[in-house]
Amino acid sequence: MARIAILGAGNGGCAAAADLTMRGHSVALFDLPRFAERLTPIRERGGIEIIGEGFARVDTITTDIAEAMRGAEFVFNPVPAFAHEVFARTCAPYVEDGQTIVTWGKGGACLIYGQVFREAGVGADVALGDTNTLPYGATRMGPTEVRIEARVMELITAAFPGRLIGRVMAALKAAFPEYSIRPAKSVLESILVDYNAITHPAPMICNAARIERGDPTFCLFDKTANTPAVVNLIKLVDRERMALARALGIEAYTLEEEIYHVGWNPKGREHEGVLPLYDAIHTEKLEICEGPFRLDTRHLTEDVPYGLFTYCELGRMLGVPTPVSDALVTIASGLLDRDFRAEGRSLAKLGIDPGWSVERLYEYLESGV
Amino acid sequence: MARIAILGAGNGGCAAAADLTMRGHSVALFDLPRFAERLTPIRERGGIEIIGEGFARVDTITTDIAEAMRGAEFVFNPVPAFAHEVFARTCAPYVEDGQTIVTWGKGGACLIYGQVFREAGVGADVALGDTNTLPYGATRMGPTEVRIEARVMELITAAFPGRLIGRVMAALKAAFPEYSIRPAKSVLESILVDYNAITHPAPMICNAARIERGDPTFCLFDKTANTPAVVNLIKLVDRERMALARALGIEAYTLEEEIYHVGWNPKGREHEGVLPLYDAIHTEKLEICEGPFRLDTRHLTEDVPYGLFTYCELGRMLGVPTPVSDALVTIASGLLDRDFRAEGRSLAKLGIDPGWSVERLYEYLESGV
Repeated sequence: MARIAILGAGNGGCAAAADLTMRGHSVALFDLPRFAERLTPIRERGGIEIIGEGFARVDTITTDIAEAMRGAEFVFNPVPAFAHEVFARTCAPYVEDGQTIVTWGKGGACLIYGQVFREAGVGADVALGDTNTLPYGATRMGPTEVRIEARVMELITAAFPGRLIGRVMAALKAAFPEYSIRPAKSVLESILVDYNAITHPAPMICNAARIERGDPTFCLFDKTANTPAVVNLIKLVDRERMALARALGIEAYTLEEEIYHVGWNPKGREHEGVLPLYDAIHTEKLEICEGPFRLDTRHLTEDVPYGLFTYCELGRMLGVPTPVSDALVTIASGLLDRDFRAEGRSLAKLGIDPGWSVERLYEYLESGV
Repeated sequence: MARIAILGAGNGGCAAAADLTMRGHSVALFDLPRFAERLTPIRERGGIEIIGEGFARVDTITTDIAEAMRGAEFVFNPVPAFAHEVFARTCAPYVEDGQTIVTWGKGGACLIYGQVFREAGVGADVALGDTNTLPYGATRMGPTEVRIEARVMELITAAFPGRLIGRVMAALKAAFPEYSIRPAKSVLESILVDYNAITHPAPMICNAARIERGDPTFCLFDKTANTPAVVNLIKLVDRERMALARALGIEAYTLEEEIYHVGWNPKGREHEGVLPLYDAIHTEKLEICEGPFRLDTRHLTEDVPYGLFTYCELGRMLGVPTPVSDALVTIASGLLDRDFRAEGRSLAKLGIDPGWSVERLYEYLESGV
């Protein structure tokens, strides 16, 4: 079995460390020294318990990045998007030839690693990858306990440089042999299937007052929050994304087509085909999701700067107008008194020159130079 | 006493026709032929009743614009902003030398009249004016009854061309001798004191879902609707307006200063001076205003295209960024599936060339050419 480093000991990282250990791998669980107190109880107990599945004795539990990276074949980084850069910087000096590093949960993250490694002068032969979502829906229930609520068995993955997609697929297949893992044609495809970025900001903003005062009955996707006018905003964002896809030569599905294809049409309407977006969005699975109960949460702080803002950046590069996405970025910034453009995932941070042609862009993504 | 034409038989027009008749003037009440059915019961009864004040026998009740305009010294036009253009076009062929036409309720309306009259080749010596608000808060309670809930005794008025402000002041003084009527230094000042445009769009958008589903407990300015983050958006819009004022050499008050100066600080805090905006905005007078109970209402359909959008237009002309105002215009358009930029009060509709310098702009506003 493989030697695997998990960078980040949050919900996803703890679930992964225990799950991959149980699958027989030798796991090193790392977190940044400033989160050392997270690791202390895990080190004391010697591992992590997955509630209902059992206890996993994790081989290495460390805040020493050199120790975590040494000899790891696969490095997984299941952290929120805002943390990708700092983890990339932290591990850059210790990358070894032949390693494969896959960030989980946000399309485009492998480009952040690529840009940070370039700036840091990393010369090792490393394959970078990302997945569009975490393989688990997981929650830490105590200092050494994690609950896995769901396994997201369908992952879309992309590599940077694109020609190394085989190594990234191999890493994910080694970890999750029973999962369906689909390679994106390029990382742009994986960036453009960010459904959180498409569906979260509009209802967050159009329910901002209710969310800020913490209404305990709030559900982001029910009919009181996703009224027809709000769904129209989501649709406008989705169509801006479709226009970006067209300009990039990517065949994309509309949001309502995607909801149909993943089998999420509302009960009783499974056989009606693609529904109008308002009907499609009010599925049982989505409507029961509770919260959020405050504004300062990932539905804005992650999905706006690391999702929607990147769409705006691509729009500027491609000459595709993204007025509604732009407006949502501005309003979200104003509501939280932050500058999500300055914080966010710009083309520069992705290593992309906005002056490039589409051809040059694809050449860079495939070759890495 | 004077011969006065009232153009528009809505809430404000019916109140004005009755009130000015009771004050001894000879009033002609006009509405467009397509609203003839509004006038029929008034003509049958011979006038309008102000509930609690009495019945006023109105001299002329007509859909014939020539009849309404003939011999009128003062023409008042108390209609929503979207109707200014059509009323200007309707009366243009019948304007007589020496007339004074004052639109009520929206700064900048006199420029619309000016532009329409120029296009229509009106050669008569006419003074145009506007007021920042209606002199009444009034509601039609039946076909021939109107209730005056409030008299707004402080009006700001502007003239176009500016040099004719004396005639506009005289018209308003003749109608409302006991009111305090303040002449704006120019119509730009009157455009920039549009507090509806500053305060309505942000809470409308941040409560859009709740408003669209018609929550009967909704009050636009209470603490459940105007949370701290929403107030921060209002503040950002207000500061964009302040930057426009600075670029135009206009000394303006911030919204919280204005609330203090008009004596609207919350009870018990009257003597604390200018309060932070969140505290200042939660006054008893504002918090009890109920509704709105649907999205498709003047808080968006008037205040966005005829208020906020004009700020954006001025910003582009002056090189003053108005990102939050721009974003609110885009989101409001998306929510209602309308194009508030195309509908709205652009500089072109105001007769202003965006290429002008500030000096040239003031020259135009003062001289009319």
